[in-house]
Amino acid sequence: MWPDRHDAIATVCLSGTLEDKLAAAAGAGFAGIELFEPDLLNSVLPPSEVRRRCAGLGLSIDLYQPFRDLDSTDPERFTANLRRAEHKFAVMEALGADTLLVCSSVAQDAVADDDRLAEQLHALAERAGARGLRIAYEALAWGRHVHTYQRSWRVVARAGHPALGLCLDSFHILSRGSDPAGIAAIPGEKLFFLQLADAPHLSMDVLQWSRHHRLFPGQGSFDLPAFLRPVLAAGYRGPLSLEVFNDVFRQADPAGTAVDARRSLLALAEATAAGGAGTDPVAVPAPELGGYAFVELTAGSSAAATLADTLSALGFAHTGRHRSKPVDRWEQGAARILVNARGGEPSIGAIGVESEDPPTSALRAERLLAPILPRHHGPAEADLSAIAAPDGTSLFLCRTNAPEAGGWTGDFVPTGMAAATGIGVTGVDHVGLTQPFDHFDEAALFYRAVLGLRPGEPGEFAAPYGLIRGRAVNDERRRTRIALTVSLLRRGDWAPRVTDPQYVALRTDDVVTAARAARAAGAALLAIPDNYYADLEARLGLPAELLERLRAAGVLYDTDGDGAYLQVCTELLGGRLFLQLVQRVGDYDGYGWPDAPVRMAAHRRHRIALAGAEVAQPLA
Amino acid sequence: MWPDRHDAIATVCLSGTLEDKLAAAAGAGFAGIELFEPDLLNSVLPPSEVRRRCAGLGLSIDLYQPFRDLDSTDPERFTANLRRAEHKFAVMEALGADTLLVCSSVAQDAVADDDRLAEQLHALAERAGARGLRIAYEALAWGRHVHTYQRSWRVVARAGHPALGLCLDSFHILSRGSDPAGIAAIPGEKLFFLQLADAPHLSMDVLQWSRHHRLFPGQGSFDLPAFLRPVLAAGYRGPLSLEVFNDVFRQADPAGTAVDARRSLLALAEATAAGGAGTDPVAVPAPELGGYAFVELTAGSSAAATLADTLSALGFAHTGRHRSKPVDRWEQGAARILVNARGGEPSIGAIGVESEDPPTSALRAERLLAPILPRHHGPAEADLSAIAAPDGTSLFLCRTNAPEAGGWTGDFVPTGMAAATGIGVTGVDHVGLTQPFDHFDEAALFYRAVLGLRPGEPGEFAAPYGLIRGRAVNDERRRTRIALTVSLLRRGDWAPRVTDPQYVALRTDDVVTAARAARAAGAALLAIPDNYYADLEARLGLPAELLERLRAAGVLYDTDGDGAYLQVCTELLGGRLFLQLVQRVGDYDGYGWPDAPVRMAAHRRHRIALAGAEVAQPLA
Repeated sequence: MWPDRHDAIATVCLSGTLEDKLAAAAGAGFAGIELFEPDLLNSVLPPSEVRRRCAGLGLSIDLYQPFRDLDSTDPERFTANLRRAEHKFAVMEALGADTLLVCSSVAQDAVADDDRLAEQLHALAERAGARGLRIAYEALAWGRHVHTYQRSWRVVARAGHPALGLCLDSFHILSRGSDPAGIAAIPGEKLFFLQLADAPHLSMDVLQWSRHHRLFPGQGSFDLPAFLRPVLAAGYRGPLSLEVFNDVFRQADPAGTAVDARRSLLALAEATAAGGAGTDPVAVPAPELGGYAFVELTAGSSAAATLADTLSALGFAHTGRHRSKPVDRWEQGAARILVNARGGEPSIGAIGVESEDPPTSALRAERLLAPILPRHHGPAEADLSAIAAPDGTSLFLCRTNAPEAGGWTGDFVPTGMAAATGIGVTGVDHVGLTQPFDHFDEAALFYRAVLGLRPGEPGEFAAPYGLIRGRAVNDERRRTRIALTVSLLRRGDWAPRVTDPQYVALRTDDVVTAARAARAAGAALLAIPDNYYADLEARLGLPAELLERLRAAGVLYDTDGDGAYLQVCTELLGGRLFLQLVQRVGDYDGYGWPDAPVRMAAHRRHRIALAGAEVAQPLA
Repeated sequence: MWPDRHDAIATVCLSGTLEDKLAAAAGAGFAGIELFEPDLLNSVLPPSEVRRRCAGLGLSIDLYQPFRDLDSTDPERFTANLRRAEHKFAVMEALGADTLLVCSSVAQDAVADDDRLAEQLHALAERAGARGLRIAYEALAWGRHVHTYQRSWRVVARAGHPALGLCLDSFHILSRGSDPAGIAAIPGEKLFFLQLADAPHLSMDVLQWSRHHRLFPGQGSFDLPAFLRPVLAAGYRGPLSLEVFNDVFRQADPAGTAVDARRSLLALAEATAAGGAGTDPVAVPAPELGGYAFVELTAGSSAAATLADTLSALGFAHTGRHRSKPVDRWEQGAARILVNARGGEPSIGAIGVESEDPPTSALRAERLLAPILPRHHGPAEADLSAIAAPDGTSLFLCRTNAPEAGGWTGDFVPTGMAAATGIGVTGVDHVGLTQPFDHFDEAALFYRAVLGLRPGEPGEFAAPYGLIRGRAVNDERRRTRIALTVSLLRRGDWAPRVTDPQYVALRTDDVVTAARAARAAGAALLAIPDNYYADLEARLGLPAELLERLRAAGVLYDTDGDGAYLQVCTELLGGRLFLQLVQRVGDYDGYGWPDAPVRMAAHRRHRIALAGAEVAQPLA
């Protein structure tokens, strides 16, 4: 992007009052806003005071929006619409906003004839220009007559007024499948404004799609870099402005949403520059990740003892104790689990990821607005960089056994026990993290932008207590995988904790043997219903002997076209935490989601049995 | 409906484990279930034990479902599918379920040729029949080749096997706009099963529409009685079974959902019988409602004092005190407000609705499964029937001043003050109740079925803290109106209480004068931003004098094609409760929802000002 890139955000992207929104936008480092009219109307701040406050926060008001249904086949109504516009011009003068967004009309009386429409836009532009203001005309995807940028440009060109130009919105253009390449041929000075939004591919009414499901760039399925390049090639140098209508963002803390939004622009600018357009504001490529240095489980002291027993039964060796903290290190194969006894409800507190260059990973994270965690370490202990993921999990950037940066094993005093082969766990396959409702789309972008992981396609499954959406991120070589899930609707009072689990999946080459050994050593593995295996037989016709081995070991078995995924789970180890032994056969690349409902029901059953009840109670 | 009507529900309609679902279905009085396969697979109960448990609960297993993608152009795969079916037959025998649902195939290898398809269904039916089982074949709306009931019937007729019949599903038929009238020509004995579901009109992919947005009959936009009549005319006498995939119901307490579901069938049977088909299971028409007897506000004692001050400033007279409870009666015109000082956070605790026949209203409510509230009344006090609405509000069935049933005014000792004209309040216009997230669709059906009110079209508006959906119910003469709203997504931690308000709207003939008088008497009316009035001027070009009067009085002004709605609101009177003065001009029939965001922002601002903060804090 060009050096003085100006990042802006429409106030409609954010939740709260105008004051909340301005504070959030400024806090995330935006330089400007689009002021969405209802946000002004709801506010007691007079326009002049909004201007003053924005200036104090370092925000310009780049666009006032929207003005709807200007043109009319009814001359009297058109005159009334011009009068209405004059009112808005006066507001804009007080705001210090020089550009008004005018949407293509959706009304019955919209003008179909290009000449007449150009004439009416010219009349408006003449009035705007007299006040030093500009009109940015936008083709809504569902405009009555004008719904492509090609047509809006034809009309604007025909009007030929210096105060009249185009507003381009990636959603309106990409949702209709229009090719943005033609934008490059439009003179840059006629591109007055650029609105950016991503969206998932959905097969639904485009207006509803636009009003409820837009996302920030990089969170959906549109190719935003490919959209942005012809706009830059045309010579556009105005604000890069986000205009995202999203049901979740509308109700989430705006400070977090604004950071998520700004991060999406930084990542978009980087990706666009990678195609040869402009300069890269991040300028720090993500170092390659090489899997898990460790996963840290936190728990109160009695639950920590349960965790220790379980790890022991799963074949882990207690190999170290932290020099200054109540943290034990357990190892098996390449899997390292830390148990921190200073926690509360058992959960995954921290993840150590192997970076080939931890300081560079940390620098990139900082440039991409990841919250940098304060460092607490004793003398002679490692100075590890750590950042907070959107769900609050700490991510440590490690280079295990490195003497310079990222080394951490020296912080542990060896117990004398060595990591053994145990029951055959070879490493950590992935970590499963249920996301807070408001942070699911943010999380996928976070891992992608900050750590350079790749989000997979979103999935959905029906669990006993409601629908769950899932999306995984992984590095190219599949050494670092994180499975993100979220309840599709925020859970009601009825739903139990089994719907928001956290787990560590441990890789084995033979899960049946591993499970058998773990069970023999006293691990509390989850009982799977016989009904599940009867269906497996019906569906897949597995050899009877294999089926019996799966059944006896309580292994869940999923297949896709490329292979199979075998998993066995422990009971919940207090709270919402469990461990999983997994085996990937062939090129299976998923996370066993089709079997998650069986697992959740089994966890729930176990909880109910512990409570001595037959039927679930709310909040149990 | 016929006297031995058999009401059933698919387990997929309900949240929880199989045990939860069976308990909920039985608790709501269902006689049967459709067993959705994943619910069995997730369960540790062997099929024989499911059978036993269902029998113990008085539930038959009317359908086992679904069996997908039976037919195949690949003979080998078809053979494998038959093998898979034999496994399911064995399960059904253990369950004691005699009918298997087979969906039209969506697979690549689905058979397009009717003869070949009939042949394959015949082969399956032959196997089923040999075990005394039946196949109910259903056309999915998105089936690859078979997606109408006309075609599924053609194939079933061609197959000509006694163990093969049709399953009809109202969603699959009505979502495609098919005319159900033709069903009447199908022989009744070939209609093996009937699945009922409603849905809102949505313009989206039909599979997604079906999987996420189905509703119980009477909650959506389909004409279910018109669907059911030809089915009955054909001679169908099997179960009336609900199959509703709904994201909210999937995560809500199943006991409540099951009652909601059963109520929908009772109301559907009543509506269908009204068209001359079958007998009416309710057989108690809803007596006409004549407006509000009273609205009872509950509050702790100090908040109750604030309420009293506010009512006084709004021109109400303190006309009575309850004989045995700390309840005061306030009156103005025909509006009666009770203030109960034994409550907690200020809220609307009870609504008294005028019924022309309270005992009959109560009997109908009981038949329609409304929770009947226990009666607590002192000697010589009125014995009022009361029911609980889905949000917990008590609804009293009154006939004010009736000596027999429904009278209640005698419970109050007159203070000597008479109801005066005050500031010109003539009565209660409506009550506004934010619904709990899980109960919005249930509530609309509840008021319609139990009280005979009519739900209006659902609406939606963007409030500062997220989208709000609204739906009002009213009697035909608009004397009893209730405005129901709900946050489109469950609110996050971020959103404040202003997003779930309760209010009483008080009717006036001149809201500007009333507001002026109330303000002069010290009522804390909500301040509306000047920006709002500047926009009102721009949009509507109201005469300057009127605009100035509205502005000075803090009146919000909405118009529709038929008239205008003027409202002025008090500040929040503790918690989430406020009062509203309203004036309807012309035939305006709405509730001023376009102005609700301005009101919510103003309430929020007032709260923030009270807290001495500039910008909102979470949970403030």
